[in-house]
Parts: sequence; structure tokens; C-alpha cells
Amino acid sequence: MADKPTHSAPKARLAKGFRDIEADEIRGLKQMLGMIEEVFELYGFDPVEQPLVEYTDALGKFLPDEDRPGEGVFSFQDDDGQWLSLRYDLTAPLARYVAENYDRLPKPYRSYRHGWVFRNEKPGPGRYRQFMQFDADTVGAASPAADAEVCMMAADALERLGIPRGQYVMKVSNRKVLDGVMETIGLSGPDHEATRMTWFRAIDKLDRLGRAGVAQLLGKGRKDESGDFTKGAGLSDLQIERSLAFATATEFSARSVEGTRIGAEGAAELEEMQKIFAAAGYGEDRIRFDSSVVRGLAYYTGPVFEAELLFQASNEEGQLVRFGSVGGGGRYDDLVSRFRGEKVPATGFSIGVSRLYTALNHLGRLQAARAGGPVVVLVMDRSRLPEYQRMVVELRNAGIRAELYLGLSGLKAQMKYADRRGASLAVIQGDDERARGEVQIKDLAAGARAAEIIGSRDAWREQRPAQISVPQTKLVETIRGWFGSRQT
Amino acid sequence: MADKPTHSAPKARLAKGFRDIEADEIRGLKQMLGMIEEVFELYGFDPVEQPLVEYTDALGKFLPDEDRPGEGVFSFQDDDGQWLSLRYDLTAPLARYVAENYDRLPKPYRSYRHGWVFRNEKPGPGRYRQFMQFDADTVGAASPAADAEVCMMAADALERLGIPRGQYVMKVSNRKVLDGVMETIGLSGPDHEATRMTWFRAIDKLDRLGRAGVAQLLGKGRKDESGDFTKGAGLSDLQIERSLAFATATEFSARSVEGTRIGAEGAAELEEMQKIFAAAGYGEDRIRFDSSVVRGLAYYTGPVFEAELLFQASNEEGQLVRFGSVGGGGRYDDLVSRFRGEKVPATGFSIGVSRLYTALNHLGRLQAARAGGPVVVLVMDRSRLPEYQRMVVELRNAGIRAELYLGLSGLKAQMKYADRRGASLAVIQGDDERARGEVQIKDLAAGARAAEIIGSRDAWREQRPAQISVPQTKLVETIRGWFGSRQT
Repeated sequence: MADKPTHSAPKARLAKGFRDIEADEIRGLKQMLGMIEEVFELYGFDPVEQPLVEYTDALGKFLPDEDRPGEGVFSFQDDDGQWLSLRYDLTAPLARYVAENYDRLPKPYRSYRHGWVFRNEKPGPGRYRQFMQFDADTVGAASPAADAEVCMMAADALERLGIPRGQYVMKVSNRKVLDGVMETIGLSGPDHEATRMTWFRAIDKLDRLGRAGVAQLLGKGRKDESGDFTKGAGLSDLQIERSLAFATATEFSARSVEGTRIGAEGAAELEEMQKIFAAAGYGEDRIRFDSSVVRGLAYYTGPVFEAELLFQASNEEGQLVRFGSVGGGGRYDDLVSRFRGEKVPATGFSIGVSRLYTALNHLGRLQAARAGGPVVVLVMDRSRLPEYQRMVVELRNAGIRAELYLGLSGLKAQMKYADRRGASLAVIQGDDERARGEVQIKDLAAGARAAEIIGSRDAWREQRPAQISVPQTKLVETIRGWFGSRQT
Repeated sequence: MADKPTHSAPKARLAKGFRDIEADEIRGLKQMLGMIEEVFELYGFDPVEQPLVEYTDALGKFLPDEDRPGEGVFSFQDDDGQWLSLRYDLTAPLARYVAENYDRLPKPYRSYRHGWVFRNEKPGPGRYRQFMQFDADTVGAASPAADAEVCMMAADALERLGIPRGQYVMKVSNRKVLDGVMETIGLSGPDHEATRMTWFRAIDKLDRLGRAGVAQLLGKGRKDESGDFTKGAGLSDLQIERSLAFATATEFSARSVEGTRIGAEGAAELEEMQKIFAAAGYGEDRIRFDSSVVRGLAYYTGPVFEAELLFQASNEEGQLVRFGSVGGGGRYDDLVSRFRGEKVPATGFSIGVSRLYTALNHLGRLQAARAGGPVVVLVMDRSRLPEYQRMVVELRNAGIRAELYLGLSGLKAQMKYADRRGASLAVIQGDDERARGEVQIKDLAAGARAAEIIGSRDAWREQRPAQISVPQTKLVETIRGWFGSRQT
């Protein structure tokens, strides 16, 4: 039910499941996105962006079959009665764009974009209703060479971000191979759809539950530590054995799909990708087959891949766990085709930006993104504000980040302000200094954060006191010298 | 009425009033936004971003007084019945953020952000329902020094973008001065609100209609060229004369608000700003009083400003007109206060990103943003695809933007593809070249776009033929040399 509208003072509160992003994160993200872009550009990908709002039917997947579109997306009606939705990923809008502009685009068409997407879901810890994705896609290339390229590009991007080789892996599998495996164990066809879903969910838990746990989930079922029982897929021992043989193999074996046409196709695609990786010098330490990649199978039609970070980090419960997936993708040949009634093959990769940002922060890769605090010129005499302003302008003209204290408070509060701002230096000119044509420059030793960043400050302080007076004409020169010394 | 849902092939079409953004524009915008950020950072402003979705009542202005929130915003209900809206500007969410995090923020709090905003309005030529703003705001500073700083920063940003001094001006006025003028001509108080609105609309047309036209609009009314009659404000000759004396003055005269307390306050604020501009060296060629700035008066409470570009450009009808406004702002002391029940002064400036981008394009300031086309390695023999891929990897490893042709077409279509991509060079290795251990490098003279960018290509071509064969081992070196020569 709708809240009754009130006209009293509104409460200042974020909408449920949304969040604000503050300076350090914005600067870090900017740095991170820039590095990824660099790699994508090197690969010949061009940027293109779609709007955040699309017709609901153009987004697909969540087609309205009732008066209100399905759950999972935020939707609203236009004044002419058509349903609009906030995009829930970047792929569906791209498919719409390519289909709409097909004739004038180069084919194959390589593109990249990052942007906000929205999910109308129950928010949880670290799960927001607005989050950012960074996608790259090649549309119009049926060759596994296009899939291989996307994998190599993702690996290069991770290395460009400073994730050492061996600390990440691009895991590759193929939807057709999985279909082949299903066929060999007798689970193909529409009758077994529910069982296949149970199968995929079980295999996806290999990392966490191990062979024995997954075998239970594939068989009669499994009781977890809390005593909850999960019903199993009901497979025979032979089916379970073949499933686990496939799912735990470190190398792909064509035997797992023996005798199935779809499986052979998938195996050939894997092999073609493998040849390209080898020729291009991307060994198993960077990209390798992994049968556990079973993501989004309703969607992908061929190769599937996942970027996994291998180092350990604390999870929300404080346990050390492998960092895990920061993105994934695969071939989705039906998404553009459904608009055009002709085959338009496509493949792509999507990075979960927040997750990757958390990983880079964990590795300490984004510290340089912190901006230096400004120089703050304090206001000792409000009637001389224009003069203080002029000092600030002189500093800025010399390329020094500087600001005038703009509040109405006294010296103590101004010093506290400078500290909160992470300021490195404060400039002070009271009546006495002014009479002598001087300014005081105060090294804000109190700023604990500043101390972390400026390693060489001690050296500077040895030579000079924490507070010095210089002729006003030497203000810029002195401060420039100070910043120069802190860089060495 | 809702469309009946259909399950046939969906049509690939942009939602009404939305648009896609392609590579040149994205690269140009990135460059432009980066330069503005540089200036804002120099001024000590920090980035902060709010989500695109807020509770409708937190956004304000469009408070729901019925079951469905007012026009102008896109709104939808959350699963708990609360109304959510897409933000219609960046200021209302910032006000919510500052109010919600007031105690832990430094005060005054300087911040900047750019992002998409949405208007549920009828789209028109150049008017979209999703567009970008770039804002900077200082919250918690009542001093006109904060307003002056924002004006200087906007002027600096325009110059940083390459708009020459004299081609832009920051126009400054004051809401309180306008209130004072209203009082002197007898239009203050709630009874005259409609007349005041007519007055503001009329004054806003001075540029276009001149003194005589505006005098008609302030008096009985005006018939335009098409014969349409606009009813006037119904003022007396004396009222009209005083109005025009104020509105056409190039310098502010305190006489125009003589005897009014609110007018005197506004005059003092203008004077304080003026002193700061003078001390900081910002002359009338950059920032000056202009009585015609009467923007958003329901919203602003003190100084108001507008960034105007003075050069001429063709409008949509092909007429040469002054380019006009690319942003504006002012003091909005009520916006944060309404959440907190205490006075929280605030001032800020908002840039219309698309409009400014159009201006910079017109001035030719963003050409460097165009990325060079990639080197395209053609596929002469599909069975040797991994080998071609290796050439591409070698080029990329040398920092050269390069791609493999990923389609299935023959040589002619591949050349056409390279042309469409704006490629500068194509690399070809057929059986003959391979037998000799050579590759062909083809200079794509056909790329007209490339020719524009690469001034020195003729020089290169004088020395070398349009197509050369080199040993495959010299591929990277030769291409690197080619790019080196084009940069000189």
C-alpha cells in the first residue's frame, strides 16, 4: 500500500538498496576504469553507450505477460501506455542497439561500455539495487577466435590492473560440451529440464562441498550441518560417477561427450580456442579449461568463461576464502538474432566493477588514487577576505590545490576544518604578519593521514620548523618547494 | 492504456526521447569531463556521487499529493509501497546526502559530480529525457565568497576547455536585488506572484525581442510576426521604464533597489563578490553583473549566475545566433535546510554537458579525442588463424592498437571492413608472402578520415610505397616506425 503523502519535513534517507559513493572510491574507480579502457582500446574495441531506460519488450527476458512487467526489473509506464524499464544489464541494450543500427556498423563490431544497471531485488550486505558493469562484446563473429580474443583481453585487463599472473585465471568451458555431457548421462531433452537445473546447481558447489557433498546432491539428497535437507537430482551411481569425472577434470577430455553431435561441436570450439591461446602465448597459468563454469545456461549458446581471482581474502564472516569471480561471459548467439530474424552471432564479457574494485583495494593497487589534501588559507580577519582569496588564486595559478576557508568560525575551528580536509599546509596571516609583509605556513603535523602519504616530510622538517614565516612574495615559491621535497 | 503484450519478435527501437552515444562523442566527453574535473580539484572540491534513484519525497519539489507523483519525473513504487523517482537533477540528491551525513562532513563542504538526470517531458529536437549534468556545490558557507568562488571556478573551467577569454562571460545577479526591484515598482507580496512571473518571462526575452518588444510584454501585450497575441503584465509606463532601466543596465546601480531592505542586502552581496573578483584578478571580461539573469527564482535565494558563450553558431533553423547558456547556478539556502530544521546555506553551479560539448565541437576543441584507427590483420587462410592472431598479439604487446579480422568474408570485404574501422594500416600474409617469410603492410589511402588526422602521412608516402613487403620479423618495428613518422 502507498504511504499517505505528508507535507511535514521530509527525512533525508537513501532509498533502500542504493548507496552514495565517496571521494576515495570515485577516484579509485576512475583509475581502474581507465586502465581497463586502455586495454580494450588496444584490442580495437570502440566505446558505445546505450541509455539507462529501454522499452521493456526490447530488453526481453522479462516480457510482460500481465499488466505489470515481471519481477527483477524496475518498470514504469510512459504517457502513451508503453512500458519502460531500467536496464538490468548492459548486454540487452547493446543487442537492441546493434539490431537497430545493423547496416551501418562495421561487422564484426567490437565495442565496450561501462555503466549503471538496476535490479529490483531484495538488497543484502554488499548487494545493491544499482551497480556498475563494464562490458566488452563482439557482434557478428561466429568464430571461436572472437571468444578467445575476449578471454585474452580480460586476462590482459586483470594484469594491467596489477593482479599478478598466477593470482587470477580465466576459466573456459562450453555450453555445447555441457549439453553433450547431459546427453551421455541421459539428461537431455525437455523432460529433464528440472533435473538439469539441479545438476548445474550441484556442480556449481564443488568448490564448497567437495566430491562427496556434490555426489549426495546428484543422488538422493544432502543434509547440511544445520540439519536442513536438500533434495537431490536422483541420479544413478553411474550417472553420478560420469558427472563427477567430467566436473573434476583439469583438462578437457573428448570422452566425456563421446558419441554426441552437440558435444563434438563444443569440443571442436574448445580446441580452436586452445590453439589460439597457445599461438598467442597465453598458457594455462592465464587461461584454462574448467568444467565447473556452468553460468547462465539459459542465455549462453557456446563458449562460456569466468574470471576468477585466486588469492585469499576475508569474507563478511571474517573467514579466509578464495576471492572468486569478478566477471564472466560467453557466446550469446540468440540475443541480437531475436530482433532480426537472421543469425547474428555475438560474444562478450562483463566485469562486476564493485567486486573488482574491492579486490584491487585488497591488493593495495589503488592507493595512488587518493588526492592530496589542499592547502588551506585561513581567514584571520574577515574584512580582508579578498586579500586571502588572492593568495588562494596565486597558489591555484601555480597548479597547487588550494582553498580559502569559507565558514564563519574562529581559528580553532578553522584548524579542525583543515585537518578534516586532510590538508597538508595551512597559510595564516594575522595583523602582525601583515604589518611585516609576511605569511605563516603551518605544516599540519596533526594530519595523521598526511603523515602516511608523505614519507619524506621528516626530512623536510629537519631543515625547517613546523611553522615558518616567509615574505608574502615568497608564498608560492615556498609551498612549491615544500611539495617538491615531498615527492622525492 | 497499456499495449497488449505480444510474444512475436520485438522491434529493436530506442525508447522515445532517449539516445545512444557513439565513440567520438564518448571520447570527446571523457576529455571534456576530465578537464573540468582538473579545475574543480584544483579548487579543493572532492567528488561524491549519489544514486540515480531516490525516494520521491526526499527529492522534493514534486511531492506526491495524489496517488501518483507529479509530472516531470519518472516514478515507480517499491515493493513496500514507497514511491521512488529517477533524479531530475544532481542538486536535490546532494541536498539529501549532505543532510543525511551532515555531522561527519567537513564544513563548508565542497563537492562535485557528473551524471545522468531524467525528465519525464515531451522530447523535442535536441531535448532528451536523459541528459548529463556536471555540478559543483559548496554547502555550509553563507558568505558571498563561496558564490564568488563558484563563479571563478566556472570561468576557469571554460578557459581550461579552450574557450578564449572574451568568448564567454559569467553573468551574475542576485535574487534579493530582483526582489528589491519588484518592491520599488510595487510588485512584491503574494498578490503579484502571477505578474512577477510574467515580468521575469518578459525580461528573459530582452536579447531576442529588444527594448520595444519587452516593453509591450510588460504593458498591454504583444503580437508576434505570426499574429499570435501574448497578454502583457499590465504595468504602467513608469513601472515599465524602471523595469527596463534596471534590466538594460550594464552596471549594477543601487538606485534600482533604493529604499528596500531586501534590495540593499542583495546589493551588499553583489558588492562583496565584486571585491573578491577584483582582488583575484577576474575582470569584467570574465565575470560581470547582468540584470537579465532571472533563472529559477522559486529556487534560488541569493546570488544567481549563468555561463554564456558569446560566439555565434548556427541554430537548428540554420540562423546565426549567439551560442548562449551552457550552465548556471546560484545560492539555494533552503534545499538542505528543509531536511534539518536548521539553516544550512548552499551555493552551486551546474553545467549542461551536452550543450557545452556541442560548443566545444563547434570550436574544434575536441578533435584530439578521436582514437586512431587500429591496424587490421587480414585473414587470407582461415586454417592459419592462430598465426595471424600471434601477429596481432605482437603488435598489441608493442602498444599498437591492432585487431584480427574476425568475420568469414573474403579479401574485398575485409578491406571494406578495415576502411569502415578507419584503420590506418592492413597487414596481409598470403601463401606467397609466407613462403618468403614476409608480410605485406598496406597503407589504407582510402580512409578519408585517416587522411584528415594524419597530416604528415604524405611525407611518409613520398619515401615509401603504399604497400610494402617486409620480413615478418620486422613487422612490429616497421609499423612502429610508420606511427612514429606520423606523429612528427
